[in-house]
Amino acid sequence: MLITLTTDFGSVDPFVGSMKGVIARINPQVQVVDLSHGIPPQDVMAGALVLRDCIAFFPRDTIHVAVIDPGVGTARRPLLVESDGKYLIGPDNGVLSLALKNTAPDRLIHLSNSSYHLRPTSATFHGRDIFAPVAAHLSLGVDPTLLGDPVDGFVHLTWPRVFQSKLGIEGEIIHIDRFGNLFTNISEGDLLALPKDQLRISLGNIIIDGLVHNYAAGEDGRSIALINSSGLLEIAVYKDSAERRHLAGIGDKVHISVREK
Amino acid sequence: MLITLTTDFGSVDPFVGSMKGVIARINPQVQVVDLSHGIPPQDVMAGALVLRDCIAFFPRDTIHVAVIDPGVGTARRPLLVESDGKYLIGPDNGVLSLALKNTAPDRLIHLSNSSYHLRPTSATFHGRDIFAPVAAHLSLGVDPTLLGDPVDGFVHLTWPRVFQSKLGIEGEIIHIDRFGNLFTNISEGDLLALPKDQLRISLGNIIIDGLVHNYAAGEDGRSIALINSSGLLEIAVYKDSAERRHLAGIGDKVHISVREK
Amino acid sequence: MLITLTTDFGSVDPFVGSMKGVIARINPQVQVVDLSHGIPPQDVMAGALVLRDCIAFFPRDTIHVAVIDPGVGTARRPLLVESDGKYLIGPDNGVLSLALKNTAPDRLIHLSNSSYHLRPTSATFHGRDIFAPVAAHLSLGVDPTLLGDPVDGFVHLTWPRVFQSKLGIEGEIIHIDRFGNLFTNISEGDLLALPKDQLRISLGNIIIDGLVHNYAAGEDGRSIALINSSGLLEIAVYKDSAERRHLAGIGDKVHISVREK
Repeated sequence: MLITLTTDFGSVDPFVGSMKGVIARINPQVQVVDLSHGIPPQDVMAGALVLRDCIAFFPRDTIHVAVIDPGVGTARRPLLVESDGKYLIGPDNGVLSLALKNTAPDRLIHLSNSSYHLRPTSATFHGRDIFAPVAAHLSLGVDPTLLGDPVDGFVHLTWPRVFQSKLGIEGEIIHIDRFGNLFTNISEGDLLALPKDQLRISLGNIIIDGLVHNYAAGEDGRSIALINSSGLLEIAVYKDSAERRHLAGIGDKVHISVREK
Repeated sequence: MLITLTTDFGSVDPFVGSMKGVIARINPQVQVVDLSHGIPPQDVMAGALVLRDCIAFFPRDTIHVAVIDPGVGTARRPLLVESDGKYLIGPDNGVLSLALKNTAPDRLIHLSNSSYHLRPTSATFHGRDIFAPVAAHLSLGVDPTLLGDPVDGFVHLTWPRVFQSKLGIEGEIIHIDRFGNLFTNISEGDLLALPKDQLRISLGNIIIDGLVHNYAAGEDGRSIALINSSGLLEIAVYKDSAERRHLAGIGDKVHISVREK
Repeated sequence: MLITLTTDFGSVDPFVGSMKGVIARINPQVQVVDLSHGIPPQDVMAGALVLRDCIAFFPRDTIHVAVIDPGVGTARRPLLVESDGKYLIGPDNGVLSLALKNTAPDRLIHLSNSSYHLRPTSATFHGRDIFAPVAAHLSLGVDPTLLGDPVDGFVHLTWPRVFQSKLGIEGEIIHIDRFGNLFTNISEGDLLALPKDQLRISLGNIIIDGLVHNYAAGEDGRSIALINSSGLLEIAVYKDSAERRHLAGIGDKVHISVREK
């Protein structure tokens, strides 16, 4: 049994270590796997994207804990989402939502049963006091229905809409990775209607003609576009940062049109 | 059995990996848990604070290794501290001291028995050559008394004093976390003598009236003060960095006074 | 059985997490050890140095996966190197080469058997789609010969040459660690021919006379030189960064001469 952790806690503070201690005290046998602790502070969307991209690769019964939680201690609910044999635990602020990829959850539980929480429970660190102990108890086989009351809905992040028209497709940058590669919200499927060998991708006044298959195709230094390993259209520069080169940012529009043959 | 690691080694160099290799070769079964490798270079106080905040959450017989060690290779002793069933291993420079929270250690051992060290033993990397192998041997059940000679005292970091007077309380900033939140040395207990609903907190010319319970209470953008998950008075700004906003730094004074009703 | 990971993937993106998921699904029992995910983007040399310094400390049958892979998806081969009971897996771009320290590999295999890869296999993320699953299958006992075809040679990084003459030795800076310490390519052995107590080390117009044994020997703030824990000549400043102090960079020349008694 595995518990994964995704947080914006960084590597300077005791936050991640405390969560690992809490888990180890409840279930010393469980393996804890760090997905990422470098999510930008309070960036719920970035955390949701990491979960979305990772969890399909893990064994079915893995427990995924995500703590990007600026609303900790308010009315926002601590939540368990069960979907296709996977468990997602975190605040009900959308961080768990993209991992479901438009499927309905099999079960939603408001983690209201404080007998599975650390006591006293702080109002500022539910990662340590609620999410870690609940995940550890779940890994021991505690029935999810004991962890709190079932609820009907949960907060969904909006995947920014891709606009399709006769003129082409408009999407936007939704993530910038460590290499400065620009992830758009445009998926491989969105491009199916267009003739693959005539695609023209524009970002500001940058124009890229055609898709390539790998980064080294841009060895000559030009900007390139490709379908990346998350299945999304990405704009990149080989061994350089497209973010810096184009002064690009999250939310910048990307247009796809069809060029003349 | 768990071994935790807290270092200032960062994530670019072979230092952490070498320690993990040494441990795995001596005890392939033991689980190694990273607490933090992002302690600022040579910042013994920051490492001591991470240990102080984390170790209470771990199982009793966990072995905690801390390597923030600018004096490596000098006369400063490599040390084992046993306290309440926990083991702390690291240089005798204070990094282990705050974890004891004013309790006396049950045992102090100068790790002088080189048969439990890596040979040859470098003068610049005791994390790999002394602390990692000693921790691994200890996790195999080696009697602590075999690791070296008992000693009487060890280096304590000074927890900066909180001054109490009829005019109020004076403390200071002792840690700034990844979010830019300002941890002070003033604990919840220090505030008991003052009327809770009339507290006024000042940092430079910033004045904060009253404590809040969570970060979102500062949704309007004002600076807030709260008792954080480490039990310390903290100054924060919701979804922003109090460090940047107030150009605050470690050692800056924080005053608590009582305002008129 | 252990699998170690060394990458330039950082801590913001789903890359490391996806690899861990792939491994866990194939072999839930194997322990995954992070060596470093902070290798500078595309810095094959830095990754090769981490492997070179770490792997001797690990148990013999450990599987070391290194993914610093700007050429992913091109003709560069995915490779398995077997050497002295250790397994190294990664792209054939030199990142695996320094770990062998001038010994010949016992076996080289081009990882061409796609039945051990993830399908579909992306052209941009072989860490997840080839290296992780191959490592996991290998950890389950799959015979290396099943993973692909044997090959004869592989890409070697050039360890920058150390020049020896009657006037002295010329080397260069090959790595700068988190503390700003400057690692040179000059090993302890290179210095044997010179009288140890008359060494003069120069970097630009900085002159350092003699070697010291530990960092604290530079307590007075002067620059120091020592043989570091990797067995290399290193230039450092106690509790400060020699990189910043001397505006030094990778490739800067370092001269060793003999001063008059």
